[in-house]
Amino acid sequence: MTESHPVAGARPPLMDAGAILDACDALAALSASKDHIERVYLSAEHAAANRLAGEWMAAAGMTVWQDAVGNLCGRYEGREPELPALLLGSHLDTVVNAGRYDGILGVLLAIGVVARLHARGERLRHAVEVIAFADEEGTRYGTALFGSLAIAGGWQQRWWQLVGREGASLGEAFEQFGLDRARVAEAARPPGSVMAYLEAHIEQGPQLEDRDLPLGVVTSIAGARRFEISLGGRAGHAGTTPFALRHDALCGASEAVIAIEALARAADDVVATVGQLSVTPGAVNVIPAGVTMSLDIRSDRDTSRDRVIEAIEETIGNIADQRGLSVAWRETHSAPAVQCAGWLCERLDSAVEQAAGSSLRLASGAGHDGMAVAGLCDIAMLFVRCRGGLSHHPDESVREDDVAAALDAMGLAVRSIAEG
Amino acid sequence: MTESHPVAGARPPLMDAGAILDACDALAALSASKDHIERVYLSAEHAAANRLAGEWMAAAGMTVWQDAVGNLCGRYEGREPELPALLLGSHLDTVVNAGRYDGILGVLLAIGVVARLHARGERLRHAVEVIAFADEEGTRYGTALFGSLAIAGGWQQRWWQLVGREGASLGEAFEQFGLDRARVAEAARPPGSVMAYLEAHIEQGPQLEDRDLPLGVVTSIAGARRFEISLGGRAGHAGTTPFALRHDALCGASEAVIAIEALARAADDVVATVGQLSVTPGAVNVIPAGVTMSLDIRSDRDTSRDRVIEAIEETIGNIADQRGLSVAWRETHSAPAVQCAGWLCERLDSAVEQAAGSSLRLASGAGHDGMAVAGLCDIAMLFVRCRGGLSHHPDESVREDDVAAALDAMGLAVRSIAEG
Repeated sequence: MTESHPVAGARPPLMDAGAILDACDALAALSASKDHIERVYLSAEHAAANRLAGEWMAAAGMTVWQDAVGNLCGRYEGREPELPALLLGSHLDTVVNAGRYDGILGVLLAIGVVARLHARGERLRHAVEVIAFADEEGTRYGTALFGSLAIAGGWQQRWWQLVGREGASLGEAFEQFGLDRARVAEAARPPGSVMAYLEAHIEQGPQLEDRDLPLGVVTSIAGARRFEISLGGRAGHAGTTPFALRHDALCGASEAVIAIEALARAADDVVATVGQLSVTPGAVNVIPAGVTMSLDIRSDRDTSRDRVIEAIEETIGNIADQRGLSVAWRETHSAPAVQCAGWLCERLDSAVEQAAGSSLRLASGAGHDGMAVAGLCDIAMLFVRCRGGLSHHPDESVREDDVAAALDAMGLAVRSIAEG
Repeated sequence: MTESHPVAGARPPLMDAGAILDACDALAALSASKDHIERVYLSAEHAAANRLAGEWMAAAGMTVWQDAVGNLCGRYEGREPELPALLLGSHLDTVVNAGRYDGILGVLLAIGVVARLHARGERLRHAVEVIAFADEEGTRYGTALFGSLAIAGGWQQRWWQLVGREGASLGEAFEQFGLDRARVAEAARPPGSVMAYLEAHIEQGPQLEDRDLPLGVVTSIAGARRFEISLGGRAGHAGTTPFALRHDALCGASEAVIAIEALARAADDVVATVGQLSVTPGAVNVIPAGVTMSLDIRSDRDTSRDRVIEAIEETIGNIADQRGLSVAWRETHSAPAVQCAGWLCERLDSAVEQAAGSSLRLASGAGHDGMAVAGLCDIAMLFVRCRGGLSHHPDESVREDDVAAALDAMGLAVRSIAEG
């Protein structure tokens, strides 16, 4: 918490789902492109989105400021100001060609919860703060969660060397945005100053839709590991090389893809995906000499995930031995799973049942700001059904009645937690 | 046979394997690039190669001419000039970044056979003609076998519209090369003017090397069909979409690749290869929505090949049904198998056994000029072992003792046939 920049509240407060969806549309217009939604960290659009969201925060009775790394913060004071605050939030940045709800909906629902308290003149025991994180997607620098890591004290000095897609270093972009890199540590919230963190987010998956439920309570955020797996065989003429003399890297890779699916599926709490696969030399009449493929594997239990990785390694090793192929693995990403706090999940569950009839507990396969905030305090997440499970796509869509239920549920949970 | 352009024979004749390998090196220097071998139809290098090979033909006592489509021809008259000629040949054109033996070795072995007859002053009953075909690879126009189809009367009028890689039409290139497109039909050999066609060629596969044999006799040239197979699924977030709700096009394609291999392998006389496979959207954290892959499938029996194609279609259909994927097939190429003449194979077999100790009958999975010449007369082929089965690559390699055996075997077979 560095500087306090209260913003005049000229906007009507976000009191209902219709207003929240209108606000999502208004933010969608703050884009680097007229053709699609693109709003990256420290851009002019970032500044414009902070200004606009700041007006809604002010209209909800909050004190508003931008922190030392560009997160937009609003505080709705509690009856006992010395108590740790309940944090609500999500992010306002986007991927390229984004939808209008991923992150944004969570920020606006949080503001809406406070707007309703403010409209009733209701103060809770604990202060409620809303944070609109400035960089969750990592679109500009390829490294995600800058905003939430900063408030959890996880800002890393080496990031200053990162160069954005447009060619400027993070340090340069910082200054251009009007931030002072010498003060970045001030974004970190002191341990003990926050009691918990709640985040609402679109599900980005099909489970709620599949069960015909508007809302779900997240039990954990999956830990992901990613690998690049290369298989090396021997090129040969497609017409003249008998099967017995082939070392076909694509046949081996195909067995590997099927084995990855089968082993992860058998583990029940693991998902694994081969999303990229390229073949060399890639000619219609040449036996594939090499295949490089990606593996993304996630679980809410790191041990389950790592057991499956071991089984996959062993199986691919056997496939390679049988086919006379070489195998190489390279790990490209690793993050541990984060568990949501049981006590917060129970409050959210009750709130969802009250607001939406029934709740569903589900794991989040996608990463979220909450993963970083978990380094600071207990966290929990509310998922909102989205059409077709689609996200990171202009067709991202939510139902207004689901948003209304989410606003009610978040309001109930916030009161229950911040009065406690 | 249009114009006769005898060329002065300034070169020493190709009497042995060493001279033939030196000649391969000399032709390799006639390339469009200093970095690699590239000699395409109707290029300056084509003209230079015809000139050089024509000198070796002349040195072997042949009357030499370039025919109406640019094939280089040489005739070594027989004792009974009115009898049909025995044709020997292969091609002098290359792929891009070629080796120095594919096609070329067969032309030079044919010239060597005649050089030895000439050196001994020996005339056979039938004339022996050598044809150095001008376009087997199809590098420039994407359509192969121009030279051999022309002599078999298979030149097609629609080819004049083809545009080469460099932007000029075939008609323009024809005139630039000094050929008269009005006279192209004169390249066709009258039926009855040729008794048979023999071609020596590097194996382009590993079977001879695998059995430690220098030479083999080709029983048939495989008929190939090629397809582009597309599988359509549904993209989804790699972390949030459970297996039960996935329609992963790459998992389906992987099952298809394995099924293609298993079904072709079970058929014994069929080879099938998936050499190209591309994934969309191709992101590490997105479930593949689409896969397009190639299928190249060959057999010396068209019925076997087509039975396997039917089984593959059925199996991929089942895979797609189970996974909720769409399937589309597009045929991109189709050529029937060509059988070598039994009586010619027997002569070649005896010659190979005499020259190299033992012979092997094997099918050719690759296409050759003989496929086109089969429309004119009986054909047979001799395969020469090549290192690692490698072809269409600068590392293409043959052993000098194998070339010596091939020269002996071709000489024995030619005498046996042309005296008959």
